[in-house]
Amino acid sequence: MRTEGLSINLATVREQFNLREAVEACARLGISAIDPWRDQVQKQGIDESAKIIKAHGMRVTGLCRGGFFTAADDKGRQTAIDDNKRALDEAAAIGAECLVLVVGGLPQGSRDIAEARDMVASGIDACRAHAKAVGVPLAIEPLHPMYAADRACVNTLGHALDMCEQLGPDVGVVIDVYHLWWDPNFEDDIARAGRGKRILAHHICDWLVPTRDMLLDRGMMGDGVIDLKRVRRAIEAAGYDGPQEVEILSSAWWAKPGDEVIKTCIERYNTVC
Amino acid sequence: MRTEGLSINLATVREQFNLREAVEACARLGISAIDPWRDQVQKQGIDESAKIIKAHGMRVTGLCRGGFFTAADDKGRQTAIDDNKRALDEAAAIGAECLVLVVGGLPQGSRDIAEARDMVASGIDACRAHAKAVGVPLAIEPLHPMYAADRACVNTLGHALDMCEQLGPDVGVVIDVYHLWWDPNFEDDIARAGRGKRILAHHICDWLVPTRDMLLDRGMMGDGVIDLKRVRRAIEAAGYDGPQEVEILSSAWWAKPGDEVIKTCIERYNTVC
Repeated sequence: MRTEGLSINLATVREQFNLREAVEACARLGISAIDPWRDQVQKQGIDESAKIIKAHGMRVTGLCRGGFFTAADDKGRQTAIDDNKRALDEAAAIGAECLVLVVGGLPQGSRDIAEARDMVASGIDACRAHAKAVGVPLAIEPLHPMYAADRACVNTLGHALDMCEQLGPDVGVVIDVYHLWWDPNFEDDIARAGRGKRILAHHICDWLVPTRDMLLDRGMMGDGVIDLKRVRRAIEAAGYDGPQEVEILSSAWWAKPGDEVIKTCIERYNTVC
Repeated sequence: MRTEGLSINLATVREQFNLREAVEACARLGISAIDPWRDQVQKQGIDESAKIIKAHGMRVTGLCRGGFFTAADDKGRQTAIDDNKRALDEAAAIGAECLVLVVGGLPQGSRDIAEARDMVASGIDACRAHAKAVGVPLAIEPLHPMYAADRACVNTLGHALDMCEQLGPDVGVVIDVYHLWWDPNFEDDIARAGRGKRILAHHICDWLVPTRDMLLDRGMMGDGVIDLKRVRRAIEAAGYDGPQEVEILSSAWWAKPGDEVIKTCIERYNTVC
């Protein structure tokens, strides 16, 4: 079964494996690309993680996640910027191709989403020079509108691209089907992202009906309603040929053995690639 | 305390009251506008409901709800159209100012959201002549994107307005803050809706952080993160001066006495109107 063009976001097996175990499992099953989360890398140690990843010849399609630029005061916003610079260093240390940004929601007590969005743009802007210096682009991940208040106030691909164009180079987007599949402008915006050379990653999973939990009920590809093949064709037509990265945050899949989950990712990837 | 310009969507007290009890409670507390749900009207009897509403001098800001135009086959779609025509008759019988449409999600087994959207436009188009004949406009309610698969595949005000313009007259929109507050184009689209004379109703509640349930955890105004005053100013600037209609689907509020809920609606309305 084909594993070329497939990356495993290690959140998909975060309850089963630490970073070393996850990389070993991926390698054992023929996977050659991963995207670890920052806490996984830190727990293993950054140098050790870099060694493990290199020893297994893994491509690193991203590091999850920087962001959370919104805060109620200047000090909080500066703390976030400093932390994102450290995240860029960590991404560079493990050879990650981008730093995935979950940009942050409304600051505590705020009802001003326009202001929160300005904070995001300012925060990213403050990290751009460092991103360029370490050679790791910043990847804005627009999140589903149901996360606008508490995780990310950038909720459509069009809005993320507006922000990229406002900011300039060294910034792009992660296209995660889970967050964006419903948008009537999705395919037009994919084409626009391609024209601007802004596509840095393509995340896949599926939208289940019903969805029982707003955070931890993402579906395995094929179990939901997203037309993954159609989205992939649009992304390839836009000029992006990087891996499809499986990112499934799911209490149901976390309860299964890690090898079984990765094997299922491979099987289902073969039905949608 | 001011009750002028306030309407109570009777789903807000659906677990506490039948239609008669709800209307009596609203009248007792100084409310002069309501929006009942279709099942509440049918259970009370349509003629009886019309009498109760008239006897209490209630304005009827809408009837909830028609729609669900998407279906896997022609027969299912025709059944939906026929049912929406009956809903228009019922709306006319109780003097409702519009029929609120929850347009429907993906048909069973479908992954083609563009096709579902075409079904919605066709279904509404097939009801327009009847809407005109009975004098009740059709009001598309764009629902939050988290309902795209299972309830409504029209998820932004801009998309609803595109559909209105494609369809012509006798069709407008319900602007419900719960579904639309996150949209970076929300205020521009409110202005656009005003220019096109498409605003038929304004629904309010609040978005809670955290939101614990995707369906039944809407918040009372003031308990969440939506800038309700700002949205109302934009809607009034767009030329709409109809009531603000409180629609709260919430297992927490349904567990409280109905009079207490309505009194709280009045108090909180006075903080945002």
